Amino acid sequence: MKLLIKISYLGTRYCGYQSQSNGETIQQKLNEATRELFGFDCDIVGCSRTDSGVHAREFCATVCRRKTNSLETKIPLERIVPAINRYLPPDICVFDAKWVPESFHARYSVVAKEYVYRIYNRRVMDPFEVGRAAHLPGRIGESDLCRMQAAAERLCGTHDFSSYMAQGSKITDPVRTIYLSRVERAGDLILYRVRANGFLYHMVRILAGTLVEVALGKIDPDQITEITGSRDRSRAGRTMPACGLCLERVFYETPEE
Amino acid sequence: MKLLIKISYLGTRYCGYQSQSNGETIQQKLNEATRELFGFDCDIVGCSRTDSGVHAREFCATVCRRKTNSLETKIPLERIVPAINRYLPPDICVFDAKWVPESFHARYSVVAKEYVYRIYNRRVMDPFEVGRAAHLPGRIGESDLCRMQAAAERLCGTHDFSSYMAQGSKITDPVRTIYLSRVERAGDLILYRVRANGFLYHMVRILAGTLVEVALGKIDPDQITEITGSRDRSRAGRTMPACGLCLERVFYETPEE
Repeated sequence: MKLLIKISYLGTRYCGYQSQSNGETIQQKLNEATRELFGFDCDIVGCSRTDSGVHAREFCATVCRRKTNSLETKIPLERIVPAINRYLPPDICVFDAKWVPESFHARYSVVAKEYVYRIYNRRVMDPFEVGRAAHLPGRIGESDLCRMQAAAERLCGTHDFSSYMAQGSKITDPVRTIYLSRVERAGDLILYRVRANGFLYHMVRILAGTLVEVALGKIDPDQITEITGSRDRSRAGRTMPACGLCLERVFYETPEE
Repeated sequence: MKLLIKISYLGTRYCGYQSQSNGETIQQKLNEATRELFGFDCDIVGCSRTDSGVHAREFCATVCRRKTNSLETKIPLERIVPAINRYLPPDICVFDAKWVPESFHARYSVVAKEYVYRIYNRRVMDPFEVGRAAHLPGRIGESDLCRMQAAAERLCGTHDFSSYMAQGSKITDPVRTIYLSRVERAGDLILYRVRANGFLYHMVRILAGTLVEVALGKIDPDQITEITGSRDRSRAGRTMPACGLCLERVFYETPEE
């Protein structure tokens, strides 16, 4: 059996999820914590590679003994969550752990992921939202929000999303299916929620940036279908900053519980 | 005229509001920013002295030229807010500024202040709430919450609140009037909201700690009146950590707008 853990983290201090040479990562912290807990090196496979500064409310990862496809431990399952957390910094926490079959793969078994992009919409930035939301000082009124929502809906479905992909990724098939694409206001925040079977490089940040252009009247909601069809990155909006992005949920093909 | 500014800040990095020798304070940052903006030293008088690690959503302070009781500037009022913020770190922001008469005093003109104490109530601490809420891992059920609320109500009114005052303050009159004292649930958070004409040293943190003892069944709501009457600090609950405390609102005798 493999151990599947669910993690929540504030990405501010980290160079993304994936281990790399320059700077600390979430994966590295999980490697250190599981080594301390189990007494041997582990392979941690994450559901996604979040960028530097991106957050997660529910990130999933499997833990196996290094170079094997399973984990053996005498620690009872219910003790694992509090025990791992003792070895993790306060900005990363494991909130669930369960056993899954060896056929389960944290990345390839994912059927959908849901992200939320947070935009703080008041003239002066709220210190409590710094590093957790992008700042858009100009007032987004109700009609602007309706146009954003109309544009967001036009992104649903199966499309080639090349227009919303940053350069520098090795993705060869840019076709994805968006199941849910919705804009909502929550107090002074504007939230863009998007669920898809997969995302291209910087895709959510570019989708959010495109919706911001719609809010600002620079792109009309009716142009979205054309922008998508053009497969031309220059037609879509700006790439919004990483700090506003949060991985909210991960869906697996076999219900993992 | 004096300048009255309204500030929001995340207190985590600071040694409280008031300037002191060991460590950075909010007042010091405001001194630096106003000196940069106006080109001369200013006296900043705050509405309250928040402790190290305590936050504020609406802190009020007056700005006068040093050793005078007024401020003269050619900068138009509407330009002051964005201009000051350019000289402040991202965890402190000014969101409002207005002119008030010289008779106005940021501290002595206060008629009431409202604080919120935040408690995160799930087994594993949420990384997004670290430094912003206290952690109470044991589940507080609906009946526990009702008892907290019953206890909170018994704190309203004019009383000698010595039982809820930490040692080390120079306060001679421990009588205060609590106008509002309410417990509410907001998702995984329990919020304790309290409004009074003034607060004793660590009073909100001790009130919150007393309500936690009520939630845990160690103090009965009916004992609150007796605990208050005893004027005995040892009868009340623990002092909750500073990070959960936030100054929410300040009320002035003459409506300042």
